Amino acid sequence: MSKAAFIAGDWGTSRLRLYLCDAGGNVLARGEGEGASVPDCAGRFGAAVAAWDKAHGVLPAILSGMVGSTIGWREVPYLKCPAQPSAIAGAALRFQAGERGIAILPGLTCRGKTGAPDVMRGEETQILGALRLHPNLAKGRHIFCMPGTHAKWVAVTDGAVTQFQTALSGELFELLRRHSVLARDSGEVDSQNPAFMLGLDFARQKADLLHLLFSVRSRVVTGEMAKSDAASYLSGLVLGKDIATVLALFAFDSPVQLICTPALAALYGKALSAYDVKSAVIDGDRASLAGLVHAHAEIFS
Amino acid sequence: MSKAAFIAGDWGTSRLRLYLCDAGGNVLARGEGEGASVPDCAGRFGAAVAAWDKAHGVLPAILSGMVGSTIGWREVPYLKCPAQPSAIAGAALRFQAGERGIAILPGLTCRGKTGAPDVMRGEETQILGALRLHPNLAKGRHIFCMPGTHAKWVAVTDGAVTQFQTALSGELFELLRRHSVLARDSGEVDSQNPAFMLGLDFARQKADLLHLLFSVRSRVVTGEMAKSDAASYLSGLVLGKDIATVLALFAFDSPVQLICTPALAALYGKALSAYDVKSAVIDGDRASLAGLVHAHAEIFS
Repeated sequence: MSKAAFIAGDWGTSRLRLYLCDAGGNVLARGEGEGASVPDCAGRFGAAVAAWDKAHGVLPAILSGMVGSTIGWREVPYLKCPAQPSAIAGAALRFQAGERGIAILPGLTCRGKTGAPDVMRGEETQILGALRLHPNLAKGRHIFCMPGTHAKWVAVTDGAVTQFQTALSGELFELLRRHSVLARDSGEVDSQNPAFMLGLDFARQKADLLHLLFSVRSRVVTGEMAKSDAASYLSGLVLGKDIATVLALFAFDSPVQLICTPALAALYGKALSAYDVKSAVIDGDRASLAGLVHAHAEIFS
Repeated sequence: MSKAAFIAGDWGTSRLRLYLCDAGGNVLARGEGEGASVPDCAGRFGAAVAAWDKAHGVLPAILSGMVGSTIGWREVPYLKCPAQPSAIAGAALRFQAGERGIAILPGLTCRGKTGAPDVMRGEETQILGALRLHPNLAKGRHIFCMPGTHAKWVAVTDGAVTQFQTALSGELFELLRRHSVLARDSGEVDSQNPAFMLGLDFARQKADLLHLLFSVRSRVVTGEMAKSDAASYLSGLVLGKDIATVLALFAFDSPVQLICTPALAALYGKALSAYDVKSAVIDGDRASLAGLVHAHAEIFS
């Protein structure tokens, strides 16, 4: 086994993913920990890597995500777009935590298509990684999509993040599914269910989602749709509106690069396809790790 | 005191409002009870009016709202639009509950502007009442709005409900305010707060609400907006999108008739005014009562 050289950490609001890496960025071991929104990041990080410290000595760590926010360990100011990969690594906040050298990568901010400011933390590291895993994506213009609680749609030109747009897709779906009368006992989301396609199609309506959502209930109440199809229909409706809006905001001249879990990739891939948009898939965890390894090489070497 | 003749009940999902009326529809006493979504409507109604039964004998009752739904007392089929006031009263479900004659008014259904079915239960009774309170509204075409959990926008021509559209405005606002990271510690909604106007204005964007909602967080995170202004901004955003969508779906050739509480009327009135739409206010409880009294006269006389 090669020698452990550093620790990489993808530290989001709800979860910490840890990788023990050798100097070449190969993963020697994996670990997990609590999200960055719980107090005392310093103490919890120390506890999460204590076994590795004992076995390999205190190693430097590179971290990305909400750990750099006001609710995290140390606040790292957002970097403004357009942002080059080298600038992202260059804007890392470096500090000592006892014997350990820490670097936290910055998030990005931009003025969105709508005129409001937009922000991301963690997704910029996934893009860094995706560009390392697929160097062809560092040339020309590409749209990346990171589906999830807050879906990010990101335009990258010649490797630089130029602009992005956040949609509340994942969070809105979950809120409605868990707490609303709309989607009570509404079954599981199944992209093969015709109700998913009906939702995608109904989302083409010019009416805002606010005026389309009640159809989840009214179709069931009037007997047009089975209750157990409602979650699939709601999912189609939300994803369709997300995609329809993005298509109106951004030009799509190459396949959308989906950076996420295989399950989300299947769902978004099918939804994009219904809107005649091609997509390709990059594993989200792999992209995060590749981005952290790349940034580590830039910062610590 | 004149003689009690009947009981009128506005029985929604979360609340029962009761009125003891004389033959002319004057209110002699008021009462309250649990919503129609709790089991055993028959037993709970009997308990809620027991004192009146003792004092005045068992009186007939006219009810409207979710009490006529599948989760209520007895299901009353929806009446299809266009629906005349006389047809609404005529489609009441009449039955005996022990010694008491009961009539439950039907809800309405229509094919909405978006092509999906739409439904209401209770609001049709408020419209009946509004037309009795303001007979001038029974001539020509008028748009009524009942803001709330599920806001109803209703087109009425020569007294008949022709079409309506439901927006999830109230529910979506509450879900985001209570459960989302967007609006944590976000202050109280204040229509005088400039953030309310900023939200109304930002809602003019063509982008769907799904892509505008994250600005509640991003404006705070980037320091553009105080956290304590976020609820007012979110409210403006949701109301603005509701109104902008309705303006694209319906023609507005006279003031919108807001049927609701004074607080909601102030909020929607200001929002409509920002979109250059005039409005008038009809008290929601008064409209319900007037509708029930009118229907009682049609049914029982």
